[in-house]
Amino acid sequence: MSIVLYELTGADERCFSPFCWRALMALAHKGLAPERRAIRFSDKHEIAFSGQDRVPVLVDGDRVVPDSWDIACHLEDCYPDAPSLFGGDQGRALARFVAEWTATIQVQVHSAVVLDIFNHLEPDDQAYFRESREKRMGTSLEEVQEGREKRLPALGQALYPLRATLSTQPFLCGQDPAYADYVIFGAFQWARVISPFKLLETDDPVHAWRERLLDLHDGLARRAPGYAV
Amino acid sequence: MSIVLYELTGADERCFSPFCWRALMALAHKGLAPERRAIRFSDKHEIAFSGQDRVPVLVDGDRVVPDSWDIACHLEDCYPDAPSLFGGDQGRALARFVAEWTATIQVQVHSAVVLDIFNHLEPDDQAYFRESREKRMGTSLEEVQEGREKRLPALGQALYPLRATLSTQPFLCGQDPAYADYVIFGAFQWARVISPFKLLETDDPVHAWRERLLDLHDGLARRAPGYAV
Repeated sequence: MSIVLYELTGADERCFSPFCWRALMALAHKGLAPERRAIRFSDKHEIAFSGQDRVPVLVDGDRVVPDSWDIACHLEDCYPDAPSLFGGDQGRALARFVAEWTATIQVQVHSAVVLDIFNHLEPDDQAYFRESREKRMGTSLEEVQEGREKRLPALGQALYPLRATLSTQPFLCGQDPAYADYVIFGAFQWARVISPFKLLETDDPVHAWRERLLDLHDGLARRAPGYAV
Repeated sequence: MSIVLYELTGADERCFSPFCWRALMALAHKGLAPERRAIRFSDKHEIAFSGQDRVPVLVDGDRVVPDSWDIACHLEDCYPDAPSLFGGDQGRALARFVAEWTATIQVQVHSAVVLDIFNHLEPDDQAYFRESREKRMGTSLEEVQEGREKRLPALGQALYPLRATLSTQPFLCGQDPAYADYVIFGAFQWARVISPFKLLETDDPVHAWRERLLDLHDGLARRAPGYAV
């Protein structure tokens, strides 16, 4: 049966959505290579069949699964013989916590790269993105991103729980990577795909962990168009 | 074989260490009822046999295990037939992350109750506590605790990942509580035992979760001397 992943895509085939990267890495973890279909902000009608307007959307045979969390659960439940994404019910429950924690990190990453996102969109999408985001944030994209260097120490501090965990194990999920790693990795890959801004110092254990994630699954994330920062 | 837990204790048998509460809840989870031995700051020589000076210390037959994390791992590995604390390797790895995240919460709880800790110590311990803590923090206990009401919104915000997770499941570890729940619960029980200060609004889902934890294991934590806040 065919597996299709609809992904948010900018100019030059840059797939930058952190949530799509969670799904991509989860699919690769299960040994699945989806047909990847690019969706631009202006193309949202193409996923109307999913009953909502957000990517990623997975179509696995006759199953339509929107939402990155539900996609991970679908893959775990429908492909039990492939490597586990959660390692059991408790791992799944705690991965949920990691996803909620990651939401707080993504807010900070967003403010560091939001203008870079804009700069990597097709012109039609740029107009939509600027209008919708500036309305939501109450200020301009330029204003939001301004001063990002000064906010880096706060991001570094917010990453403390990840950094400290990585001092005792190579991956967030232990000796091997799994879904919770992909969740937080998505935030960094989001930035890497569309921004030349360096979020992590080279000597940060989080940087070394990200490098390991970039190498995974035959370098799936490293091979994506992006910035080697 | 006998199981003994050495616990930090203040005046009136108040066992307030968040790390000791992690161990107590983990022991109860495994169906184990340790002999509890009170250690005051001035009694630290009584745990010198453990090769270090921090509580909790577990003595399980001929095994001496300091450190709450190592105690949890010891219990999980040596009592595999009792209910699991981690639910597998990935759950264990992610519980480690929860422990590191909890460290950031405990810093905030500490600043809200540090003078209350002092007020619940025996006189000898009070002198030690004030001197060592004020030296470490570079200011007085009173100064640190001052203004705690104004810092409550920041604590509420920091608890977002826990609160959001609890909107989809009753416990951090899923349908049932396990070690990661005990880790963050320890921070609240620490405060509850020695402080009348209300950290959580009654309508906060974290409050309802804490109530469920207080009821666990025949109300082990609720029965402890403390404040019903």
